[in-house]
Formats: sequence, C-alpha cells, structure tokens
Amino acid sequence: MTYNSVTSEVIAALDRAAPGRVVAGADVNPDYAKDEMPIYGSRMPEVSIDVLSTEEVSAIMKVCYEHSIPVTTRGAGTGLVGGATPIFGGIVICTARMNRIINIDTDNFVMRVQAGALLKDVHEAALSRGLMYPPDPGEKLSTVGGNASTNAGGMRAIKYGTTKDYVRGMTVVLANGDVLELGSGVAKSSTGYNMMQLITGSEGTLGIITELVLKLVPAPKATISVMVPFEELEACVATVPKLFASSFRPTALEFFEKDILVVSEEYIGRPLFPREIDGRPVGAYLMMILDGDSADELDPIVENIMEFMFEEGAMEVLVADTAPRIKDIWSARSSFLESLSKQYRLLDENDVVVPVTKIVEYVAFFNELCKRFDFKAMYFGHAGDGNLHIYTVSNDMSEDDFKQQVHEFMLAIYEKTYLMGGELSGEHEIGMGKAQYYEDVVGIRNIELQRGIKRAFDPKLILNPGKVCFKPEDMADAKNLCS
Amino acid sequence: MTYNSVTSEVIAALDRAAPGRVVAGADVNPDYAKDEMPIYGSRMPEVSIDVLSTEEVSAIMKVCYEHSIPVTTRGAGTGLVGGATPIFGGIVICTARMNRIINIDTDNFVMRVQAGALLKDVHEAALSRGLMYPPDPGEKLSTVGGNASTNAGGMRAIKYGTTKDYVRGMTVVLANGDVLELGSGVAKSSTGYNMMQLITGSEGTLGIITELVLKLVPAPKATISVMVPFEELEACVATVPKLFASSFRPTALEFFEKDILVVSEEYIGRPLFPREIDGRPVGAYLMMILDGDSADELDPIVENIMEFMFEEGAMEVLVADTAPRIKDIWSARSSFLESLSKQYRLLDENDVVVPVTKIVEYVAFFNELCKRFDFKAMYFGHAGDGNLHIYTVSNDMSEDDFKQQVHEFMLAIYEKTYLMGGELSGEHEIGMGKAQYYEDVVGIRNIELQRGIKRAFDPKLILNPGKVCFKPEDMADAKNLCS
Repeated sequence: MTYNSVTSEVIAALDRAAPGRVVAGADVNPDYAKDEMPIYGSRMPEVSIDVLSTEEVSAIMKVCYEHSIPVTTRGAGTGLVGGATPIFGGIVICTARMNRIINIDTDNFVMRVQAGALLKDVHEAALSRGLMYPPDPGEKLSTVGGNASTNAGGMRAIKYGTTKDYVRGMTVVLANGDVLELGSGVAKSSTGYNMMQLITGSEGTLGIITELVLKLVPAPKATISVMVPFEELEACVATVPKLFASSFRPTALEFFEKDILVVSEEYIGRPLFPREIDGRPVGAYLMMILDGDSADELDPIVENIMEFMFEEGAMEVLVADTAPRIKDIWSARSSFLESLSKQYRLLDENDVVVPVTKIVEYVAFFNELCKRFDFKAMYFGHAGDGNLHIYTVSNDMSEDDFKQQVHEFMLAIYEKTYLMGGELSGEHEIGMGKAQYYEDVVGIRNIELQRGIKRAFDPKLILNPGKVCFKPEDMADAKNLCS
Repeated sequence: MTYNSVTSEVIAALDRAAPGRVVAGADVNPDYAKDEMPIYGSRMPEVSIDVLSTEEVSAIMKVCYEHSIPVTTRGAGTGLVGGATPIFGGIVICTARMNRIINIDTDNFVMRVQAGALLKDVHEAALSRGLMYPPDPGEKLSTVGGNASTNAGGMRAIKYGTTKDYVRGMTVVLANGDVLELGSGVAKSSTGYNMMQLITGSEGTLGIITELVLKLVPAPKATISVMVPFEELEACVATVPKLFASSFRPTALEFFEKDILVVSEEYIGRPLFPREIDGRPVGAYLMMILDGDSADELDPIVENIMEFMFEEGAMEVLVADTAPRIKDIWSARSSFLESLSKQYRLLDENDVVVPVTKIVEYVAFFNELCKRFDFKAMYFGHAGDGNLHIYTVSNDMSEDDFKQQVHEFMLAIYEKTYLMGGELSGEHEIGMGKAQYYEDVVGIRNIELQRGIKRAFDPKLILNPGKVCFKPEDMADAKNLCS
C-alpha cells in the first residue's frame, strides 16, 4: 500500500469539489490532528475540508481515490480511541458543518439528519415534537455521524439499546466516490446482508456516513432519578441482577466508588453526594433513572425500589424529582472524564464489558492488579450492562514509563475480560488505541475476515487507514506514523 | 466456479466426519430438496447429513472445501424464499438434531442453544425460568438457527424487535471448516466490525451457525388480546400511527381483511370472528396483544384502548383475557398460510415492508394492480411495522402462466414498495425466490459489495450457492439448476 502526497494539482481538484473550503499545511486546525485521547499520538493532515453535502464528499473521494490519498473523517472529534487521528496524513474531512435536521416524520417516528448534527440538537429536535432519540452517550457535543460510526452507547442503553438500534437508514459515500443508500426508515428489514449494521461501528473505514435516518420513540412524560449509597461496592453491584429479575426497568443504572466522586466534586467545586451517613462512610453509589408516562405511574415504582434497596443493604435512598436536583446529582457523574483530564497530565482508558454478575469479581481482580503499577486507576460503570470505564492516570510518571506500564495493565485487563466472557469495548470502538489488543483477543482468523470486508469496500485502503482491523504497523507505509 | 460431484472417496471422508449419518442418493429425505415454497423449484442433494455438533460441521466443511462441493444448511426447512433449496446439489447439512438447550443464565438473561433447537422449545425453556425469548415468527416449529439466518421477525417485533436484536453470541463454522466464536453474551459491544449482525440474516451463505447465545427478558406476567372489527380497511389501518403517538405500547398489532379470514375459518372448520355487527358487514379486523406485569396494570390500559378505538370508528372492541379464548382468536390469524397452501395448488408470496402511514395507499395500489391478473391475491399484515404478507394463489392457471403473471405482479409490487420508501423483505429474506428482484431494487453497486463480503468469507462460493447476492444465473455452473 503506497499513499501519495497531496500535490498542488490535487488541491486544485479538491477545491473544485468543495470551493473555498480546502485548507492546507499550517492553516489546518490543529484539533484535526487527534481526538480526545492524544496519548495515542497525533498527526497533522496535509489538507482539511469542512464539507457541506453528500455530493461534495463524493467529489472529494473521487479525487482521493484516483490519487491514492488517505482520508480520515471526523465529526466533533470527541472519540476516545484515536479513531479520528489521520495517522497517515492526507485529507481530513470534517462533517461538523453538515449539521442539518432534514426532517422529522412524527407519524413514522423517524428523523433524517446530516451526519454532523450534534447529539444535543437531535435530542432537542425530537423532544420539541414530543419524541425522544434514546441513545445518550456522555458527550452531547458529539455528532450523530460519529455516534453511528462507533455505535456509541450511553446511560440509557440498558433500557433502549445503543446507536445501532436506532439507525434505520443511511447515505454512505464509498472509497471511490460512489454513493450508497442503505435502509429506508421502515421498522424492520430482512433484505440481504445487513450492510447498515456493518457500516455502523466501522469508524469510517468502510465508507463515509453523510446522512442518517434515526428511529425515534414517544418521549416519556415523567422522569425520576434515584441515588443509593452503599457501604461496600459488593452489595451495591450485587443488587443489579436482582433488580432485573424483578419487574423494574430502569432507564439508566450507574455505579461508582467514592474515589472518583471525590475527583469529580473537586473539579465541580462543591460536594453533591453524602460521603457518610449516620457516621458510617459511604463506599459506593448506585444511580438510577426511571421514566414513564406520568408521575402517578412512577410513584409506586419508586416506593417498591426504596423497599427493595433497603432490603439489599442500601444506607439511604435519595429521590430527585425536580429538574434542578436531577441536573445536580448527574453533573458529578457526567464530569468524571473531564475532571480526570483536567487534573492529570497523563491519561488512558478502556471500556470493557463483562457479564453483569461478574462485575464484583472483575473489580476485585482489577484492584489487586493495580497494586503492581505506579499509575493511579479509577473506574465507574454502567452497572446495568456490565460496561466499565477504567481510567489510568498519572502526574508523576514519564510518558514512556506510563505508556509501558499501561500497556502491561491493558494486556492483563483484556485477558481477564475475555476469560470472563466479556468484550473489549462496550461503546468506544477500536480506533488505533485498541487495535493491537483487539487482534490478540479475537484472533487472526476473525481479523482476516474483517480485512476481506475492508478490501471489498476500500481496495486501496484509503479510508481511515491504520484503524480497527489494520493496525498502523500492518500498513506498508508505516514511516508515515504519527508521533 | 466449478463444483465437483460427491465421489465415493468424498463419502468415505464425510463418513469419518459424521459416522453413520451420511445418507446418499435415493435414500436422501426428499424434504431436503426444498423449503416450504416449492414454486421456486427443488433439487435433490447428492448427500445429506444430520449433524450433531460443531466439530462435525467443521470436519464436514474441511472435506467439502478441499473438494469444492456446494453445501446448503437447513434447520426445519420452514423458510418461504427457497433459501434452503440445494440448487447446485452437493451436500445438505441438517441441524435439526442439534436441538439442545445448553444452558440458561437467569442472572445475565441469556440462553445458549444449539442451532437446531426449535423455536417452541426455546420459548418453553425460557418461560419455565420466568423469562421470555421475544422473537415470535409464525412457525413455532422453525429452528432458532434458521431464525437467525433469516433474521426472522414475527408478531411481537413492534414491541421487542426481530431475531437480530436477541442474538448475543454465535458459533459459526466457516467455509474451510474454521470455527469462529462471535460475541459473548454481554449486553453491549462496540468491538470492531459487527460480524455477528452480518452473519445474522445471511442465510448460511457466509458461514454455518451451530450455536447461539440468545438474549432473554423477564416474562410478562399478564397478557390480554383485543380484537377490533372495522367497516373499512382505511379506518382500521389509520388507527395505527395514532396508537403509537399515544402512550400505548402493544406487543402485537395485526390487521387483515375479511377475505382471508373466510379462507382461514373454512380451513379450521368453524367461525371465530363476527362477520357482521348490528347488521353492518365487517370489512377489516385489527388484533392486538398487550402485556404487562399484572392484570391490574393492564385493566386501565384496555379501557383507554376501548375508548380510543371507538373514537376511531371501531364497530366493536372484543377483549380476550382467558387462555382458551386468546388461543381461539389467534388460531385464525396463525392459520392463514396453512389454509392457503391447502386450498390452492399454486401459491407464491412476498413480504414487503412499507412505512406504516403508507399502508392504506399501498393496499389501494395493490387492489387496482390485481385486476390485471388471473390469480387471486390476498394479504394480511403486521400493521405495527408496515410488514405485509401478500399471497398470490390459483387452482385454475397453468404453472407457467401463474409464474409469468406473478413475476409481472412482483416487479410492479417491488417498484411501488421502493418508490414509497419501503423494502423488499421484512422478515423472510432473499433466498433464491427474491434474488432477481433484490438486485433490481438495491442496484448492482450494493450487490457487488455484498459479493465482495461473500468472497472474503467463502472464496470458493460453496456455501448455499445461488442465494442472496449471487443469483442462480450468476453462477457459471448454471446447468446444475434445480427444476
């Protein structure tokens, strides 16, 4: 695989495709060199283009295909696995300006949007029509195109599923510039290979998503949040399978230990959660959202949950049913990543998923494992689906030492994950940050099949090279790697 | 592509792979020559093998791969698109004896089964533990392996989704005999290309599913069925989007006209539904299932639905809340296909899906279209998801004339479907019966990508050849076609 550099002839051709928006060399926005996990490296692209339409993307890809120039597509760049980093330079296509809500069909419960529409705008547009777009990744300033490319999850996944469950149709530009329409917005389909689900989660390596048809649901009319402190993590997490076996259907079910709460509250600047109750220190917190058609419907459910939680050893059950209080108690939870990023110079993370019943055993393993390393590790998780976010942070270590120790830690973590019947990523995908581990855990036969799929879509391997099933070092042109 | 015949040397090798179960020539069960839609043709395989394990399937595929022998896998053979017909002869692998429920994990809500387990047994095994396996295709004697291979839908799809939404893990034997484990049973995953969703619905053309991990949900504790007669189809179907916009969440929502009910009641031998109410003839029926945690929870919902339906022009609202009465009113609905098969010598069908709001317009088009043809056409549908089953039947026409007229009819039907933003199949898949129309409606670029995927998995094209993206006539060895 040999990529060509972007010549002045290519720039002229690109400028005909996207007049006035081709930015080259030092003028390129340095944000386009990375996503939100710069520990995996960054590299400036030779050219960036903020695209406005499917037709432009198609015209750009025709030029890049002809000249064998690598193309990395980004939305808001909020990914956490180095997925949007243009490892081999070339072109960065940014969809952020393709942010239009094209239409909302309230009878068929679908919304057509451009890929660069922000998650928060999609949420708001749906709510303004009495509907809800359920996927709810933590970063509301991410784009729905990015969400689809990573099959982003979020807190409501336990009740509503992840992004893939809400993609009903998509417009995709292929490597050679051809435009493919997949799905049509209808409620179900068994019509040939599921190309739409294949492209969902493929991180721009098979095609560039330019438009999406998203499924909506009626918006719940009432929402209540419940926060439950426990003395010990074990009792906290042990409630989860029992909760599911009952008739409770929480919309979100999160857990975290006091350590990470302290970091978050320090960042926010004020305490939001009780640290001790009746003189006994709190060890872990369970947080829950319940939604329904009316407060009257939720009241008896909340009563039952209180009873259930006290039987399970909860220290207290705190209910938030006003908007300001709900916002308050979730602000700590949603600031974990941001507060860690601000307070630590070095940061890496993973997002493993294990069977819900194995969370306690997994955390015990993790706590023991951490003792062997110099970095600090913290975690929180989507208790309802076994998806844990484990952060390794340091202010003292050298970057090389941190990376080496984290690498050893991740090897052990992923080995344990798969021994327990888990998977590498619940909602972040592979990118370049996890590609080396991914091949180890799923095996080369699986990777070879994925490479076959990749070659069928992108024979010149120009779309987001060095990600998912082709690690950077699998590419012949490895000298072009980012620093 | 050249396939080899099954020689005595090959039979000997197969017998070592599956001792005592290799059946050849005239001894092969003639059922293995077709599925339940013989109008698409049938062909006897040279050999059939009722397999018992993943290891056996792997050993068989090693032999077939080495000798370039086509392999068609079948479960119970209840498909409706010719998907299990061994067009090019070779081997038929039948999974029906691999029917074991391997385990049920009630804490993590998953069940591991062999691919040949019958849907009814999976339903019963889940219920015996207080859980439910939601996918509910009409044919309860189908296998879950077949369900996964076609992404089978069924009546509960509007509330719970289709088979693909319940496949959490699978064991797949590849064309060369390699065994691939995909997924692991965990609740969510963003771990590389979604190979599991790609193989789901691929009709055994990419690999042979031998085991599945299926997601379960807590079984609802109360169920009520509601039957609502209307004078006109238009008013009947027009209730559907309004119903969804309200807070009702029916588990099933079916509609049919009186014509097909008459055929079904004649077959069953007794009337089950009112044909007229207060002297006015009934034109169409809406049927609904509601489930919940208790009868107390359902009672007010049913009251609201009654009020809603009368406002929408229902002639009556009949509620069935006892098991015998529920069974009774659904027996007519579930006998449509069987009664048509028994009463007509020639039968073909399709299973288009259109936006829910377009059902009335679609049916009007269909009624007008039918006037041009000599066959009789009848339909019924999953009103909640716009998935219609349209049957063309005749006792008088010659088979050739029937096929020719049905072909013209289907061309017009599919053209209209796509103009309306619909898709070719909601739950039956492509097989060989729909392959020619499929290519027309999705275009050759889409088909070429699917062929690229197919070649990555099955470079010798030995797995279920002549289906989905390779029509029988695309295969060089077309002289081997079935009659």
